[in-house]
Amino acid sequence: MDLLKERIVKDGQVFEGNILKVDSFLNHRIDMRFLKEVGKEFHRIFGSENVNKIVTIEASGIAVGCATALAFDCPLVFAKKSKTKNIADDVYKSIVQAYTHETLSEIFVSKDFLGPSDRILLVDDFLARGNAILGLIDLIHQSGATLVGCGIVIEKGFQEGGNRLREKGIRLESLAVVDKMDSATGEIIFREEKVKSIANM
Amino acid sequence: MDLLKERIVKDGQVFEGNILKVDSFLNHRIDMRFLKEVGKEFHRIFGSENVNKIVTIEASGIAVGCATALAFDCPLVFAKKSKTKNIADDVYKSIVQAYTHETLSEIFVSKDFLGPSDRILLVDDFLARGNAILGLIDLIHQSGATLVGCGIVIEKGFQEGGNRLREKGIRLESLAVVDKMDSATGEIIFREEKVKSIANM
Repeated sequence: MDLLKERIVKDGQVFEGNILKVDSFLNHRIDMRFLKEVGKEFHRIFGSENVNKIVTIEASGIAVGCATALAFDCPLVFAKKSKTKNIADDVYKSIVQAYTHETLSEIFVSKDFLGPSDRILLVDDFLARGNAILGLIDLIHQSGATLVGCGIVIEKGFQEGGNRLREKGIRLESLAVVDKMDSATGEIIFREEKVKSIANM
Repeated sequence: MDLLKERIVKDGQVFEGNILKVDSFLNHRIDMRFLKEVGKEFHRIFGSENVNKIVTIEASGIAVGCATALAFDCPLVFAKKSKTKNIADDVYKSIVQAYTHETLSEIFVSKDFLGPSDRILLVDDFLARGNAILGLIDLIHQSGATLVGCGIVIEKGFQEGGNRLREKGIRLESLAVVDKMDSATGEIIFREEKVKSIANM
Protein backbone atom coordinates (compact mmCIF):
# COMPACT_ATOMS: atom_id res chain seq x y z
CA MET A 1 0.00 0.00 0.00
CA ASP A 2 1.91 2.99 -1.30
CA LEU A 3 0.05 5.54 0.81
CA LEU A 4 1.18 3.65 3.91
CA LYS A 5 4.81 3.30 2.84
CA GLU A 6 4.94 7.00 2.03
CA ARG A 7 3.51 7.78 5.45
CA ILE A 8 5.99 5.51 7.23
CA VAL A 9 8.87 7.20 5.42
CA LYS A 10 7.48 10.66 6.12
CA ASP A 11 6.46 10.23 9.78
CA GLY A 12 8.12 7.06 11.07
CA GLN A 13 11.17 7.14 13.31
CA VAL A 14 13.66 4.33 13.65
CA PHE A 15 15.18 3.65 17.07
CA GLU A 16 17.74 1.18 18.31
CA GLY A 17 16.39 -2.24 19.14
CA ASN A 18 14.46 -2.55 15.87
CA ILE A 19 11.82 -0.11 17.02
CA LEU A 20 9.82 1.68 14.35
CA LYS A 21 7.83 4.45 15.96
CA VAL A 22 4.73 5.41 13.99
CA ASP A 23 2.78 6.79 16.90
CA SER A 24 2.02 10.05 15.12
CA PHE A 25 -0.59 8.33 12.96
CA LEU A 26 -1.05 4.67 13.90
CA ASN A 27 -0.95 3.90 17.60
CA HIS A 28 -0.96 6.94 19.87
CA ARG A 29 -2.15 9.85 17.77
CA ILE A 30 -4.60 8.19 15.37
CA ASP A 31 -5.17 9.61 11.92
CA MET A 32 -8.65 8.23 11.30
CA ARG A 33 -8.85 9.64 7.79
CA PHE A 34 -5.75 7.61 6.98
CA LEU A 35 -6.96 4.52 8.85
CA LYS A 36 -10.17 4.58 6.81
CA GLU A 37 -7.98 3.98 3.76
CA VAL A 38 -6.27 1.11 5.59
CA GLY A 39 -9.67 -0.41 6.33
CA LYS A 40 -10.69 -0.05 2.68
CA GLU A 41 -7.48 -1.75 1.58
CA PHE A 42 -8.18 -4.74 3.84
CA HIS A 43 -11.67 -4.84 2.36
CA ARG A 44 -10.23 -4.77 -1.16
CA ILE A 45 -8.04 -7.76 -0.24
CA PHE A 46 -10.44 -9.82 1.90
CA GLY A 47 -13.83 -8.43 0.80
CA SER A 48 -14.89 -11.58 -1.07
CA GLU A 49 -14.29 -13.88 1.93
CA ASN A 50 -17.66 -13.37 3.64
CA VAL A 51 -16.01 -11.98 6.75
CA ASN A 52 -18.63 -11.32 9.44
CA LYS A 53 -16.37 -10.23 12.30
CA ILE A 54 -13.09 -8.39 12.73
CA VAL A 55 -10.90 -9.48 15.65
CA THR A 56 -7.95 -7.64 17.16
CA ILE A 57 -6.27 -7.12 20.55
CA GLU A 58 -6.20 -4.11 22.84
CA ALA A 59 -4.93 -1.46 22.82
CA SER A 60 -3.18 -0.42 19.64
CA GLY A 61 -5.12 -2.85 17.44
CA ILE A 62 -8.45 -1.26 18.27
CA ALA A 63 -8.23 1.76 15.98
CA VAL A 64 -7.16 -0.40 13.02
CA GLY A 65 -9.96 -2.79 13.95
CA CYS A 66 -12.55 0.01 14.05
CA ALA A 67 -11.53 1.28 10.62
CA THR A 68 -11.62 -2.25 9.20
CA ALA A 69 -15.00 -3.01 10.80
CA LEU A 70 -16.36 0.15 9.18
CA ALA A 71 -15.10 -0.96 5.75
CA PHE A 72 -16.66 -4.42 6.18
CA ASP A 73 -19.78 -3.04 7.94
CA CYS A 74 -19.46 -5.73 10.59
CA PRO A 75 -18.64 -5.78 14.32
CA LEU A 76 -15.19 -5.66 15.85
CA VAL A 77 -14.27 -7.88 18.80
CA PHE A 78 -11.10 -7.01 20.63
CA ALA A 79 -9.32 -9.44 22.93
CA LYS A 80 -8.54 -8.05 26.34
CA LYS A 81 -5.25 -8.42 28.14
CA SER A 82 -5.92 -8.88 31.82
CA LYS A 83 -8.84 -10.10 33.81
CA THR A 84 -11.13 -7.37 35.09
CA LYS A 85 -14.01 -7.86 37.47
CA ASN A 86 -16.46 -7.00 34.69
CA ILE A 87 -15.63 -10.14 32.73
CA ALA A 88 -17.33 -13.41 33.56
CA ASP A 89 -15.40 -16.67 33.59
CA ASP A 90 -16.98 -17.72 30.35
CA VAL A 91 -14.05 -16.74 28.15
CA TYR A 92 -11.59 -18.22 25.70
CA LYS A 93 -8.09 -17.46 26.93
CA SER A 94 -4.47 -17.77 25.88
CA ILE A 95 -1.07 -16.58 27.09
CA VAL A 96 0.94 -14.03 25.12
CA GLN A 97 4.32 -12.40 25.49
CA ALA A 98 4.16 -8.85 24.22
CA TYR A 99 6.95 -7.52 22.02
CA THR A 100 7.17 -4.12 23.67
CA HIS A 101 6.77 -5.44 27.21
CA GLU A 102 8.79 -8.21 28.75
CA THR A 103 5.82 -9.63 30.61
CA LEU A 104 3.43 -12.46 29.86
CA SER A 105 -0.21 -11.53 29.75
CA GLU A 106 -3.38 -13.50 29.61
CA ILE A 107 -5.58 -12.53 26.69
CA PHE A 108 -9.22 -13.46 26.49
CA VAL A 109 -12.44 -13.05 24.56
CA SER A 110 -15.91 -13.65 25.93
CA LYS A 111 -17.46 -16.86 24.60
CA ASP A 112 -20.52 -14.78 23.73
CA PHE A 113 -18.66 -13.03 20.93
CA LEU A 114 -16.89 -15.78 18.98
CA GLY A 115 -18.40 -19.01 17.71
CA PRO A 116 -18.43 -21.66 14.98
CA SER A 117 -20.56 -19.57 12.60
CA ASP A 118 -18.02 -16.73 12.51
CA ARG A 119 -15.69 -15.98 9.63
CA ILE A 120 -12.91 -13.90 11.14
CA LEU A 121 -10.44 -11.42 9.76
CA LEU A 122 -7.68 -10.78 12.31
CA VAL A 123 -6.07 -7.34 12.14
CA ASP A 124 -3.29 -5.64 14.06
CA ASP A 125 -1.05 -2.63 13.72
CA PHE A 126 2.27 -4.55 13.88
CA LEU A 127 3.55 -8.04 13.29
CA ALA A 128 6.97 -8.74 14.81
CA ARG A 129 7.51 -12.08 16.53
CA GLY A 130 3.87 -12.95 16.02
CA ASN A 131 3.06 -13.83 19.62
CA ALA A 132 -0.04 -11.67 19.87
CA ILE A 133 -1.47 -12.91 16.57
CA LEU A 134 -0.74 -16.55 17.47
CA GLY A 135 -2.53 -16.02 20.78
CA LEU A 136 -5.53 -14.58 18.94
CA ILE A 137 -5.52 -17.51 16.52
CA ASP A 138 -5.56 -19.85 19.53
CA LEU A 139 -8.70 -18.07 20.82
CA ILE A 140 -10.34 -18.32 17.40
CA HIS A 141 -9.58 -22.03 17.13
CA GLN A 142 -10.99 -22.62 20.63
CA SER A 143 -14.23 -20.96 19.53
CA GLY A 144 -14.61 -23.07 16.39
CA ALA A 145 -14.70 -19.96 14.21
CA THR A 146 -13.08 -19.88 10.76
CA LEU A 147 -9.99 -17.71 10.35
CA VAL A 148 -10.12 -16.14 6.91
CA GLY A 149 -6.75 -14.45 7.25
CA CYS A 150 -4.60 -11.85 8.97
CA GLY A 151 -4.38 -8.24 7.90
CA ILE A 152 -1.35 -6.46 9.29
CA VAL A 153 -0.55 -2.80 8.80
CA ILE A 154 3.24 -3.06 9.26
CA GLU A 155 5.12 -6.34 9.26
CA LYS A 156 8.71 -6.39 10.48
CA GLY A 157 9.97 -8.73 7.81
CA PHE A 158 13.27 -9.30 9.59
CA GLN A 159 11.51 -10.91 12.54
CA GLU A 160 9.96 -14.34 12.60
CA GLY A 161 6.23 -13.57 12.93
CA GLY A 162 5.48 -13.58 9.21
CA ASN A 163 7.15 -16.93 8.62
CA ARG A 164 5.53 -18.47 11.70
CA LEU A 165 2.11 -17.60 10.30
CA ARG A 166 2.83 -18.57 6.69
CA GLU A 167 4.24 -21.94 7.83
CA LYS A 168 0.87 -22.64 9.42
CA GLY A 169 -0.83 -22.01 6.09
CA ILE A 170 -2.47 -18.81 7.31
CA ARG A 171 -3.20 -16.18 4.70
CA LEU A 172 -1.17 -13.17 5.81
CA GLU A 173 -1.52 -9.84 4.05
CA SER A 174 0.74 -7.08 5.34
CA LEU A 175 0.20 -3.63 3.85
CA ALA A 176 3.88 -2.79 4.32
CA VAL A 177 6.73 -5.18 5.06
CA VAL A 178 9.85 -3.56 6.47
CA ASP A 179 12.80 -5.79 5.60
CA LYS A 180 15.51 -3.64 7.12
CA MET A 181 15.85 -0.42 9.00
CA ASP A 182 18.77 1.52 10.35
CA SER A 183 18.49 3.64 13.47
CA ALA A 184 21.71 5.51 12.63
CA THR A 185 20.60 6.75 9.19
CA GLY A 186 16.81 6.45 9.57
CA GLU A 187 16.75 4.35 6.40
CA ILE A 188 13.77 2.03 5.97
CA ILE A 189 13.84 -0.67 3.30
CA PHE A 190 10.53 -2.19 2.31
CA ARG A 191 10.19 -5.62 0.76
CA GLU A 192 10.37 -5.36 -3.06
CA GLU A 193 11.33 -1.74 -3.19
CA LYS A 194 13.73 0.69 -1.67
CA VAL A 195 12.60 4.14 -0.66
CA LYS A 196 14.54 7.20 0.25
CA SER A 197 15.72 7.51 3.81
CA ILE A 198 13.73 9.69 6.14
CA ALA A 199 16.69 12.04 6.40
CA ASN A 200 16.43 12.84 2.69
CA MET A 201 12.69 13.56 2.58
CA MET B 1 -29.80 9.84 22.95
CA ASP B 2 -32.81 7.55 22.56
CA LEU B 3 -31.02 5.05 20.30
CA LEU B 4 -28.43 4.54 23.04
CA LYS B 5 -30.95 4.17 25.87
CA GLU B 6 -32.90 1.64 23.83
CA ARG B 7 -29.70 -0.27 23.18
CA ILE B 8 -28.72 -0.25 26.86
CA VAL B 9 -32.16 -1.58 27.81
CA LYS B 10 -32.05 -4.20 25.07
CA ASP B 11 -28.47 -5.44 25.46
CA GLY B 12 -27.17 -4.17 28.81
CA GLN B 13 -26.88 -6.44 31.83
CA VAL B 14 -26.90 -5.23 35.42
CA PHE B 15 -24.67 -7.01 37.93
CA GLU B 16 -24.09 -6.57 41.63
CA GLY B 17 -21.63 -3.87 42.56
CA ASN B 18 -23.21 -1.27 40.27
CA ILE B 19 -21.81 -2.93 37.18
CA LEU B 20 -23.57 -2.25 33.89
CA LYS B 21 -22.22 -4.60 31.27
CA VAL B 22 -22.61 -3.30 27.74
CA ASP B 23 -19.78 -5.26 26.24
CA SER B 24 -21.92 -6.63 23.42
CA PHE B 25 -21.83 -3.27 21.63
CA LEU B 26 -19.62 -0.74 23.44
CA ASN B 27 -16.43 -2.12 24.92
CA HIS B 28 -15.61 -5.69 23.94
CA ARG B 29 -17.69 -6.47 20.89
CA ILE B 30 -17.87 -3.11 19.13
CA ASP B 31 -20.86 -2.22 16.98
CA MET B 32 -19.18 0.35 14.73
CA ARG B 33 -22.39 1.14 12.85
CA PHE B 34 -23.88 2.12 16.22
CA LEU B 35 -20.76 3.98 17.37
CA LYS B 36 -20.84 6.05 14.20
CA GLU B 37 -24.18 7.39 15.44
CA VAL B 38 -22.60 8.13 18.83
CA GLY B 39 -19.84 10.07 17.07
CA LYS B 40 -22.39 12.03 15.05
CA GLU B 41 -24.29 12.87 18.25
CA PHE B 42 -21.12 14.27 19.85
CA HIS B 43 -20.58 16.27 16.68
CA ARG B 44 -24.15 17.59 16.85
CA ILE B 45 -23.49 18.73 20.45
CA PHE B 46 -19.90 20.02 20.16
CA GLY B 47 -19.61 20.63 16.41
CA SER B 48 -19.55 24.44 16.68
CA GLU B 49 -16.67 24.47 19.19
CA ASN B 50 -13.80 24.30 16.69
CA VAL B 51 -12.55 21.03 18.14
CA ASN B 52 -9.34 19.96 16.39
CA LYS B 53 -8.49 16.87 18.43
CA ILE B 54 -10.35 14.10 20.24
CA VAL B 55 -8.69 12.70 23.37
CA THR B 56 -9.53 9.49 25.21
CA ILE B 57 -7.80 6.76 27.22
CA GLU B 58 -6.99 3.17 26.34
CA ALA B 59 -8.49 0.68 25.96
CA SER B 60 -12.26 0.95 25.95
CA GLY B 61 -12.28 4.65 25.06
CA ILE B 62 -10.50 4.06 21.76
CA ALA B 63 -13.47 2.84 19.73
CA VAL B 64 -15.66 5.72 20.92
CA GLY B 65 -12.74 8.03 20.18
CA CYS B 66 -12.32 6.64 16.64
CA ALA B 67 -16.01 7.11 15.85
CA THR B 68 -15.94 10.64 17.24
CA ALA B 69 -12.75 11.53 15.36
CA LEU B 70 -14.45 10.35 12.15
CA ALA B 71 -17.44 12.59 12.82
CA PHE B 72 -15.20 15.60 13.48
CA ASP B 73 -12.72 14.64 10.73
CA CYS B 74 -9.84 15.25 13.12
CA PRO B 75 -7.22 13.07 14.83
CA LEU B 76 -7.70 11.03 17.97
CA VAL B 77 -5.04 10.93 20.69
CA PHE B 78 -5.39 8.22 23.29
CA ALA B 79 -3.61 8.35 26.62
CA LYS B 80 -1.70 5.20 27.47
CA LYS B 81 -1.74 3.48 30.81
CA SER B 82 1.70 2.10 31.51
CA LYS B 83 5.14 2.98 30.35
CA THR B 84 6.37 0.95 27.40
CA LYS B 85 9.87 1.02 26.03
CA ASN B 86 8.53 2.62 22.83
CA ILE B 87 7.62 5.85 24.61
CA ALA B 88 10.18 8.55 25.17
CA ASP B 89 10.34 10.46 28.44
CA ASP B 90 8.85 13.48 26.79
CA VAL B 91 5.32 12.90 28.05
CA TYR B 92 2.64 14.54 30.15
CA LYS B 93 1.66 12.14 32.90
CA SER B 94 -0.82 11.74 35.70
CA ILE B 95 -1.92 9.02 38.16
CA VAL B 96 -5.35 7.39 37.89
CA GLN B 97 -7.24 4.79 39.88
CA ALA B 98 -9.37 2.73 37.52
CA TYR B 99 -12.94 1.88 38.48
CA THR B 100 -12.84 -1.71 37.31
CA HIS B 101 -9.35 -2.40 38.64
CA GLU B 102 -8.18 -1.70 42.14
CA THR B 103 -4.76 -0.56 41.00
CA LEU B 104 -3.26 2.83 40.37
CA SER B 105 -1.88 3.40 36.92
CA GLU B 106 0.20 6.07 35.36
CA ILE B 107 -1.39 7.56 32.28
CA PHE B 108 0.54 9.59 29.78
CA VAL B 109 0.42 11.35 26.44
CA SER B 110 3.42 12.26 24.34
CA LYS B 111 4.16 15.99 24.40
CA ASP B 112 4.28 15.82 20.61
CA PHE B 113 0.53 15.30 20.41
CA LEU B 114 -0.98 17.90 22.75
CA GLY B 115 -0.21 21.59 22.89
CA PRO B 116 -1.52 25.12 23.49
CA SER B 117 -3.09 25.44 20.04
CA ASP B 118 -5.35 22.41 20.57
CA ARG B 119 -9.07 22.56 21.28
CA ILE B 120 -9.88 19.20 22.84
CA LEU B 121 -13.03 17.15 23.15
CA LEU B 122 -12.53 14.41 25.73
CA VAL B 123 -14.59 11.27 25.19
CA ASP B 124 -14.97 8.01 27.06
CA ASP B 125 -17.35 5.07 27.22
CA PHE B 126 -18.20 5.39 30.93
CA LEU B 127 -18.14 8.02 33.64
CA ALA B 128 -18.35 6.63 37.17
CA ARG B 129 -16.12 8.17 39.84
CA GLY B 130 -14.46 10.34 37.21
CA ASN B 131 -10.88 9.41 38.00
CA ALA B 132 -9.88 8.62 34.44
CA ILE B 133 -11.43 11.79 33.03
CA LEU B 134 -9.86 13.93 35.77
CA GLY B 135 -6.48 12.37 34.95
CA LEU B 136 -6.97 13.20 31.28
CA ILE B 137 -7.97 16.76 32.16
CA ASP B 138 -4.75 17.03 34.18
CA LEU B 139 -2.77 16.01 31.06
CA ILE B 140 -4.63 18.53 28.93
CA HIS B 141 -3.99 21.33 31.42
CA GLN B 142 -0.29 20.44 31.55
CA SER B 143 -0.14 20.79 27.76
CA GLY B 144 -1.78 24.22 27.71
CA ALA B 145 -4.54 22.96 25.40
CA THR B 146 -8.13 24.15 25.74
CA LEU B 147 -10.68 21.65 26.98
CA VAL B 148 -13.92 22.27 25.11
CA GLY B 149 -15.86 19.63 27.05
CA CYS B 150 -16.37 15.98 27.88
CA GLY B 151 -18.56 13.64 25.87
CA ILE B 152 -19.49 10.50 27.78
CA VAL B 153 -21.49 7.62 26.35
CA ILE B 154 -22.89 6.32 29.67
CA GLU B 155 -22.73 8.27 32.93
CA LYS B 156 -23.48 6.47 36.17
CA GLY B 157 -25.47 9.31 37.69
CA PHE B 158 -25.46 7.70 41.13
CA GLN B 159 -21.68 8.01 41.36
CA GLU B 160 -19.74 11.18 41.92
CA GLY B 161 -17.91 11.65 38.59
CA GLY B 162 -20.53 13.86 36.98
CA ASN B 163 -20.70 16.24 39.91
CA ARG B 164 -16.93 16.37 40.27
CA LEU B 165 -16.67 17.55 36.66
CA ARG B 166 -19.62 19.96 36.77
CA GLU B 167 -18.26 21.54 39.98
CA LYS B 168 -15.11 22.38 38.06
CA GLY B 169 -17.18 24.19 35.45
CA ILE B 170 -16.45 21.59 32.79
CA ARG B 171 -19.07 21.13 30.11
CA LEU B 172 -20.16 17.52 30.49
CA GLU B 173 -22.52 15.95 27.97
CA SER B 174 -23.50 12.36 28.70
CA LEU B 175 -25.58 10.62 26.05
CA ALA B 176 -27.27 8.48 28.70
CA VAL B 177 -27.29 9.02 32.47
CA VAL B 178 -28.21 5.98 34.52
CA ASP B 179 -29.62 7.19 37.83
CA LYS B 180 -30.42 3.82 39.30
CA MET B 181 -30.13 0.19 38.40
CA ASP B 182 -31.13 -3.02 40.12
CA SER B 183 -29.19 -6.22 39.62
CA ALA B 184 -32.06 -8.29 41.01
CA THR B 185 -34.70 -7.10 38.53
CA GLY B 186 -32.45 -5.80 35.74
CA GLU B 187 -34.28 -2.48 35.90
CA ILE B 188 -32.39 0.56 34.61
CA ILE B 189 -33.68 4.04 35.35
CA PHE B 190 -32.35 6.86 33.21
CA ARG B 191 -32.30 10.47 34.30
CA GLU B 192 -35.55 12.22 33.27
CA GLU B 193 -37.33 9.11 32.16
CA LYS B 194 -38.07 5.61 33.27
CA VAL B 195 -37.82 2.76 30.82
CA LYS B 196 -39.07 -0.75 31.02
CA SER B 197 -36.89 -3.26 32.78
CA ILE B 198 -34.76 -5.52 30.63
CA ALA B 199 -36.77 -8.48 31.89
CA ASN B 200 -39.92 -7.05 30.32
CA MET B 201 -38.48 -6.27 26.91
